[in-house]
Amino acid sequence: MPAATIELSGHIIDSFMLPRIFDAIMDYGGTFHVEEFRVGQSKDETSYTRIELRHDDAAQLHSIVAACLQQGAVLLATPPARTEPAPRDGVFPDAFYSTSNQPTSVLGGAGWIEVEAIEMDCAIVLNGGRARCVAVTDVRAGDAVVCGHEGIRVAPVERSRAREIFGFMTSSVSSEKPKHLVIRELAAAIRDVHARGGRICMVAGPAIIHTGAGEHLSRLIASGHIDVLLAGNALAAHDVEAQLFGTSLGIDLRNGLPIEAGHEHHIRAINRIRAAGGLQAAVESGLLRAGVMYEAVRAGIEVVLAGSVRDDGPLPEVITDMVEAQRRMRAALRGVQLCIMCATMLHAIATGNLLSAAVKTVCVDINPAVVTKLADRGSSQTLGLVTDVESFLRELSECLA
Amino acid sequence: MPAATIELSGHIIDSFMLPRIFDAIMDYGGTFHVEEFRVGQSKDETSYTRIELRHDDAAQLHSIVAACLQQGAVLLATPPARTEPAPRDGVFPDAFYSTSNQPTSVLGGAGWIEVEAIEMDCAIVLNGGRARCVAVTDVRAGDAVVCGHEGIRVAPVERSRAREIFGFMTSSVSSEKPKHLVIRELAAAIRDVHARGGRICMVAGPAIIHTGAGEHLSRLIASGHIDVLLAGNALAAHDVEAQLFGTSLGIDLRNGLPIEAGHEHHIRAINRIRAAGGLQAAVESGLLRAGVMYEAVRAGIEVVLAGSVRDDGPLPEVITDMVEAQRRMRAALRGVQLCIMCATMLHAIATGNLLSAAVKTVCVDINPAVVTKLADRGSSQTLGLVTDVESFLRELSECLA
Amino acid sequence: MPAATIELSGHIIDSFMLPRIFDAIMDYGGTFHVEEFRVGQSKDETSYTRIELRHDDAAQLHSIVAACLQQGAVLLATPPARTEPAPRDGVFPDAFYSTSNQPTSVLGGAGWIEVEAIEMDCAIVLNGGRARCVAVTDVRAGDAVVCGHEGIRVAPVERSRAREIFGFMTSSVSSEKPKHLVIRELAAAIRDVHARGGRICMVAGPAIIHTGAGEHLSRLIASGHIDVLLAGNALAAHDVEAQLFGTSLGIDLRNGLPIEAGHEHHIRAINRIRAAGGLQAAVESGLLRAGVMYEAVRAGIEVVLAGSVRDDGPLPEVITDMVEAQRRMRAALRGVQLCIMCATMLHAIATGNLLSAAVKTVCVDINPAVVTKLADRGSSQTLGLVTDVESFLRELSECLA
Amino acid sequence: MPAATIELSGHIIDSFMLPRIFDAIMDYGGTFHVEEFRVGQSKDETSYTRIELRHDDAAQLHSIVAACLQQGAVLLATPPARTEPAPRDGVFPDAFYSTSNQPTSVLGGAGWIEVEAIEMDCAIVLNGGRARCVAVTDVRAGDAVVCGHEGIRVAPVERSRAREIFGFMTSSVSSEKPKHLVIRELAAAIRDVHARGGRICMVAGPAIIHTGAGEHLSRLIASGHIDVLLAGNALAAHDVEAQLFGTSLGIDLRNGLPIEAGHEHHIRAINRIRAAGGLQAAVESGLLRAGVMYEAVRAGIEVVLAGSVRDDGPLPEVITDMVEAQRRMRAALRGVQLCIMCATMLHAIATGNLLSAAVKTVCVDINPAVVTKLADRGSSQTLGLVTDVESFLRELSECLA
Repeated sequence: MPAATIELSGHIIDSFMLPRIFDAIMDYGGTFHVEEFRVGQSKDETSYTRIELRHDDAAQLHSIVAACLQQGAVLLATPPARTEPAPRDGVFPDAFYSTSNQPTSVLGGAGWIEVEAIEMDCAIVLNGGRARCVAVTDVRAGDAVVCGHEGIRVAPVERSRAREIFGFMTSSVSSEKPKHLVIRELAAAIRDVHARGGRICMVAGPAIIHTGAGEHLSRLIASGHIDVLLAGNALAAHDVEAQLFGTSLGIDLRNGLPIEAGHEHHIRAINRIRAAGGLQAAVESGLLRAGVMYEAVRAGIEVVLAGSVRDDGPLPEVITDMVEAQRRMRAALRGVQLCIMCATMLHAIATGNLLSAAVKTVCVDINPAVVTKLADRGSSQTLGLVTDVESFLRELSECLA
Repeated sequence: MPAATIELSGHIIDSFMLPRIFDAIMDYGGTFHVEEFRVGQSKDETSYTRIELRHDDAAQLHSIVAACLQQGAVLLATPPARTEPAPRDGVFPDAFYSTSNQPTSVLGGAGWIEVEAIEMDCAIVLNGGRARCVAVTDVRAGDAVVCGHEGIRVAPVERSRAREIFGFMTSSVSSEKPKHLVIRELAAAIRDVHARGGRICMVAGPAIIHTGAGEHLSRLIASGHIDVLLAGNALAAHDVEAQLFGTSLGIDLRNGLPIEAGHEHHIRAINRIRAAGGLQAAVESGLLRAGVMYEAVRAGIEVVLAGSVRDDGPLPEVITDMVEAQRRMRAALRGVQLCIMCATMLHAIATGNLLSAAVKTVCVDINPAVVTKLADRGSSQTLGLVTDVESFLRELSECLA
Repeated sequence: MPAATIELSGHIIDSFMLPRIFDAIMDYGGTFHVEEFRVGQSKDETSYTRIELRHDDAAQLHSIVAACLQQGAVLLATPPARTEPAPRDGVFPDAFYSTSNQPTSVLGGAGWIEVEAIEMDCAIVLNGGRARCVAVTDVRAGDAVVCGHEGIRVAPVERSRAREIFGFMTSSVSSEKPKHLVIRELAAAIRDVHARGGRICMVAGPAIIHTGAGEHLSRLIASGHIDVLLAGNALAAHDVEAQLFGTSLGIDLRNGLPIEAGHEHHIRAINRIRAAGGLQAAVESGLLRAGVMYEAVRAGIEVVLAGSVRDDGPLPEVITDMVEAQRRMRAALRGVQLCIMCATMLHAIATGNLLSAAVKTVCVDINPAVVTKLADRGSSQTLGLVTDVESFLRELSECLA
Repeated sequence: MPAATIELSGHIIDSFMLPRIFDAIMDYGGTFHVEEFRVGQSKDETSYTRIELRHDDAAQLHSIVAACLQQGAVLLATPPARTEPAPRDGVFPDAFYSTSNQPTSVLGGAGWIEVEAIEMDCAIVLNGGRARCVAVTDVRAGDAVVCGHEGIRVAPVERSRAREIFGFMTSSVSSEKPKHLVIRELAAAIRDVHARGGRICMVAGPAIIHTGAGEHLSRLIASGHIDVLLAGNALAAHDVEAQLFGTSLGIDLRNGLPIEAGHEHHIRAINRIRAAGGLQAAVESGLLRAGVMYEAVRAGIEVVLAGSVRDDGPLPEVITDMVEAQRRMRAALRGVQLCIMCATMLHAIATGNLLSAAVKTVCVDINPAVVTKLADRGSSQTLGLVTDVESFLRELSECLA
């Protein structure tokens, strides 16, 4: 019967690695034999186990091994990783190892190499002692792509042994929770990341402008708390509309009442910025004198505006090619240690796709379904908050003032 | 062909009365002849029309007339209202006129009489020159119950000719709106109602406690802004739990983190109040020293706690019989001119059932479906807010401080 | 330092008992020493561990022990359960052991006794060798109520070692899943429960009638697949309205179009049944000739209609006192092994409160938040389905035809 | 005081044109004088009115006129439309008339000209007796762009005088409605559009595949009921994944259970199609033998797959540039008279942006918020259905079999 032996060590019980490995074995109908088991006898001791896996069917066994690797197991006495050349530009070899977003290492001839810029649904390319995570659009013919499960080691981000906001709320995302202290701790985390030299990314949806929270986001940017702003055409266009016409989607921002025929302010605002030559030019010419985009231009933070098929206009700075937009977002996310996603599903998912599980993420939306979807990153580093984005940003900016 | 002639006057076009009458005629396949039409030529002039309605089928014509009456039409040269005696206690005559929540008058022998305490889905009982709105549980054998459509005049609450918060947001309830000014205007409306001698009712759900907003509601009560509190066992029990254990449904209110085995605090809190002999007794004995129920007892405001089949306990003050609970709520709602419903669907619907369309209502919930359902009262006096209840109550209490 | 030693055995790793115990220790800031650990080496072998728990603070240690007990741990060499007399009717002793919905045993003088009719948020009363689960409303002065954690053993329902529908979908309730096979397996489970002599309960909300699914539920009842029907006034009233007027809440059930002034059909239907003397009498007199309530009366199944404060009417059979309604529901649920909750949050939560975790439950609603809330029963025996209740009942009745 | 006189004729009361005009006047604080009013005395007669509008402020008066035009009013004795040349490629003159999605005509020298391919948030370009609707990305320097409100006539799609599914459900989108007959009438509408030579467009989201409804959509395409398919990378990728691996997002489509490590099937499927050279090539080579994309390729229907920033891969046929994608969608939508949008917000909004209000649209989603958002098109030709997409497509394909 086909068999494989895995090893696993660390806080393997309370980080749910071992329970999930048993789950996988059961799901695929495999059997196991625990060859060795040493339990950590107290809080700081780690545990170790060696398990032999068996299944009648080699393909099913392969799937069990894949699942075990995702939980941090390593094949016993694994040989170095095997590579095959990419057959063409933009195409992986069929047997490519598909990455997760967990920190991953590859066993090369000279030992374990950490994969750079790990991201899910990519492949690993070995080259000159380095292991790079490469998207399918970026692979080049002949690249040495890691295939199969040998020589792979994943290190799932373990749950914190301390009580802290990250890794705690995810399983119980709820609008029915007190949020005050959570926001205060988030503010502390922002200061902490900056103190350690990390960068903070804000992924922002247009509801920030609709709800009148643009001023809070502007303040966060102006005061240096945001290093990277990822958004779409809508956030920027409504922000400009708010500055030029006092409305957002035709709603008067001072009182929330609709303005008949105010809907067209949106396209008029876009047209004016196109006439001005773009947001940067509009700030320089004095056409745009306040707001989120104004502060972002003034502060010189990194901004990526990614287009979408539902865009009006768009504004000149919006990147309309999606492959290019992903490349620009990837570049902007380098060094980011904390990512706050507010009131956008499209851009938040797009950003989440590009982030390592080790990056702390905060998902804020008034719709619990959105928060649940975003918070489900296979990571304990995610905090979901079901709340009004206006009150969230107001409180956060007050905590950081 | 069966026919009936109706008259209609007022701001009949822009209050949508006339369009809806045409809708009803079309829906039932009737025909009409506009016999007279005088349009108000400027803002302050009213319009008048007299329309003959026809339908092959008398029952369908009856339905058209019923729909027209709901929009404020009156049968031309209508005879006085017709009554039949209730056949038994708790049973209306089969042909009873079923009330709406709009202000309604009945033509008696001596002229039009306004129906007292109008409420939907009830009948009208005539007695000694008075017209009372009576629920089916409260009708007594022999009561003179109005039947048919003759002698009925409904006066739908017209849309305000001014831009104001009530009657405006309902059609476009949204989380994507600025809420600051709306809450400020609501605070002004609260002061205004009190200045005119009206009463303010708060209908409150347990999420107020879960989100840590109990302190804001306590402050609103302590400072005299609330006259009537309608709630269920859960609000009171979680409020007590928060005071005795610092948790709400086992969640630590200081940090939002769950406390293992903290769920049982809920039933322990209820048990202690039962042991103390009730909330009032617990305040007097010093067991309960703060919180929503403490402030309500201290301020001596009117409180009705209505039970439900999902209650734990319940607390001694909770009314477990539903017919009795409705009677107590009806009594408590007398004189209420503004009703704020926060984070409860069950109690908000129950309260809405008992209110005239002329009472201003504000529905606050983070779930847009709840707000839509509650705001759909056939009234322009309703304001729906999709937002976090904690931030709503915090802002409201700040505005009223 | 205060200490306690617990034992735990079974499939303690993959049923998540042990990970959750470590969680609880960490949450409360305790420490542990694993004194013994024997791992099940293959699928069918169980594991065993003995752990010493310590905490500086005795109260915190108490909370850790409470949490461990919920996961199936037992105090090492535990003495028999300790009791105190209930101080008054309707009041537990302050230190009462608060039950969970997991199967629970109590150590009496003569050995372990299984608690009858286990239900959460109750107490355990010992009497003549029996251990009964008693709600606070039902406890009598002097009853011997179990207090503290000694002599308590909880047996959490373990996850199935086979791939099956129960215990699988709960963690990932979703509208984006194929439902065909799940419904087919549910039909098989229904047949299976009946074959083993168990009973099936349906908890039904009024949307069943609004969506036109009444005919499917009627068929399920008529064909003997339902033994107990739990619902409220609304389901029954709309069912009657559909039979007498062809509408539900004034919507024509043949085409989904609203009927102007059709809203009053609801209260007219209720009035007619009140005039007839109730549903049973209306069936006997021939007034009611089809529908859910007609079939329930004809089949003689157990029906409990529990009132609520938002009810119109209500119908004569509706139990308006909530404590009495809970007692009647408890009685009706005896012997129920499978409970299907469709499109009702209020009655589903009320029923869930009364059920052992060992009873299989299926929660069906189009609102994912409702399904999430209902499916969160601390039990692997729960299946959540986010779908249209009409298509669910149609498919289920087709599978069982 | 600035003044303007408008004329309005048609079913101006029950199509809500006149009430909305009065609303707009009130909202902006204007005054009016009804100079003439002739009411249609019976069902088939139209009404006519001439109203003078006044406002102290010329800009506010301008807004009132703009709002009136959207409701079908025309300036009395209007001069021909005024044009200005576009200042640059991709930029409108600042005063451009911003289009709505309602059928619109422009008064040229030789009379009224109907605007071709009307679409909202665009401008109108006059050229050689033709009036074209032009997006800002497509305008060229020097194009004669219509500016201001003179010479503009909008003809809002009037509500049907008959009871029919379109224009009826929109105001009351609900999951709590019977859907059977509605789906049957939709099937009839599909046959009817085809009989008249119109085309049918399906906008499809990936939940169609996740829920197992791919087979129903495949059948609808294979049997010739769909002429245009608009979707994104996800629908096509999951459809291919379902064919190659039997899963969708790693969920086994036969039983809804997740497959550990099955998530990577998604990117493997994409890689294989990239290796094959695209969907068309994969069908030709026999790699792809069934499913939605297979049937679409076989039937030769028009397909536009528009990219998004969250895409994995994407598949070779996916258009990654958003401006190009919009152009391709516009071209594909020519001649479409009925558009069904299933389980996608992004692509449905994008498509809705490009459609005339005269095109019948059906929005199907299990999330009521999505349906509300999509159904809000200022058109009575929209039908919203809150339901499970699998049961919707199953029933629709059965009705059309």
